[in-house]
Amino acid sequence: MEMFTAEIVSIGNELLIGKTVNTNATWLGRKLTLLGYKVRRITVVPDEIEEISSAIREALARDAKVIITTGGLGPTFDDKTSEALAYALNMKWIVNEEALKLVREKYEKMGLELTKHRIKLAKMPEKAKPIPNPAGSAPGILVEKGKSLIIALPGVPREMKEMFEKYVESLLRDRGPKLAFYEDTIIIKGIPESSLAPFIDQVMKKVIKVYIKSHPKGSEGYKPVIELHITSSGKSLEEARKYVEEAKEKIINLVKDKAEILEG
Amino acid sequence: MEMFTAEIVSIGNELLIGKTVNTNATWLGRKLTLLGYKVRRITVVPDEIEEISSAIREALARDAKVIITTGGLGPTFDDKTSEALAYALNMKWIVNEEALKLVREKYEKMGLELTKHRIKLAKMPEKAKPIPNPAGSAPGILVEKGKSLIIALPGVPREMKEMFEKYVESLLRDRGPKLAFYEDTIIIKGIPESSLAPFIDQVMKKVIKVYIKSHPKGSEGYKPVIELHITSSGKSLEEARKYVEEAKEKIINLVKDKAEILEG
Repeated sequence: MEMFTAEIVSIGNELLIGKTVNTNATWLGRKLTLLGYKVRRITVVPDEIEEISSAIREALARDAKVIITTGGLGPTFDDKTSEALAYALNMKWIVNEEALKLVREKYEKMGLELTKHRIKLAKMPEKAKPIPNPAGSAPGILVEKGKSLIIALPGVPREMKEMFEKYVESLLRDRGPKLAFYEDTIIIKGIPESSLAPFIDQVMKKVIKVYIKSHPKGSEGYKPVIELHITSSGKSLEEARKYVEEAKEKIINLVKDKAEILEG
Repeated sequence: MEMFTAEIVSIGNELLIGKTVNTNATWLGRKLTLLGYKVRRITVVPDEIEEISSAIREALARDAKVIITTGGLGPTFDDKTSEALAYALNMKWIVNEEALKLVREKYEKMGLELTKHRIKLAKMPEKAKPIPNPAGSAPGILVEKGKSLIIALPGVPREMKEMFEKYVESLLRDRGPKLAFYEDTIIIKGIPESSLAPFIDQVMKKVIKVYIKSHPKGSEGYKPVIELHITSSGKSLEEARKYVEEAKEKIINLVKDKAEILEG
């Protein structure tokens, strides 16, 4: 079976020094999952060509079908994603005429001319295509290498999200596994996680298409509170939902006499 | 000069499918930075032994001085960090007597006996030491390999933070570079990032010990709003602060006639 794997490479010192929470990766992880891709890894690297390019090369070596990077596409000295991408792919890093047109139009509207720092926004690996950025100045980058599709998006969440939804999502849907994803949550109060563990084992052995993950949520009084997140994928939403409901029912039957259950 | 590098390995499918925002990595990134370590990479992997152990091996191969993992220490089938760590380090995975004592005491207080799933919480790589968990049941793991110190903490933020502050932070301070970190922020309204870029280049060439990163924050009316985050490390807080203030003054002088400046 073909595996539709995806990886996210998040670029930016601010993510490593703890200045910025990586909500972009969370948002993209969810989008990719709902499109039926398996997100296998998120790698956060600093604004350095060596580090960015090695993270991309490693994802390529793991045969990721889709690699999405965020950050490092702007005009300042520390925006190095495009150059690092060219380096990782062994491609020339050149001004892309289509991208230059997009960038020129942006700045013309502001009454600004094309400086060195602005032309840099149009430099891309030689076989790349620009992705328009309706909310900002830096175009995104789309480039293929072997069986991998690499998409570089800006780090500003508003720009990244708009570009993904407008230009990337439909492309990934077309190329993707066309699987539906379904999830549900139950809250179980009154048994510790270590007592729930054998029940989870048991249900996952019976309903092999679901994944059940327990998340301890602290306690209320002396009662431990555990959230169970049940997920599944299927050819249709109905199929995925059926697996989740089946697992949910089995869990509830196993614990209902021992605990209080709140359905999500 | 000895490099005090650190890496974070975040373990958990919930982080990859976009269910949970990785605030643990942000919190640890900030703590490590303030202790003077350079956080070089954050890697997020699924709850699989192969993936967890390869992320740890890769961090070891990059000679990270400190590797902190979060998640995957609980009692359920998908908590595999400890076993993966033993595998990555080529150590036996055995019940640690000191850890077993901690685990037994926890469950005795709850009037519960030691089941298979609970004994698992005490299994560790053979040369490891347990880190007590005042807020939960699963002890953390501390183990050395060559010049690297590896610390495995739970994924529940409250447990992770309390264990870090109580048992890990002082150890990392003692072994660390004892550098002080200083940061400041200014908001610049009225010039686009591409016009600021050459000024940032100029100041960073003059004040070589600072790092200046621009973060576009949208616009107010037609005015672009850019946040500049200026950081530095030094032997004392005074030294680090001196570099930051110097860079801040230079930036302000360069843009004050062109933009509105708000100091942080």
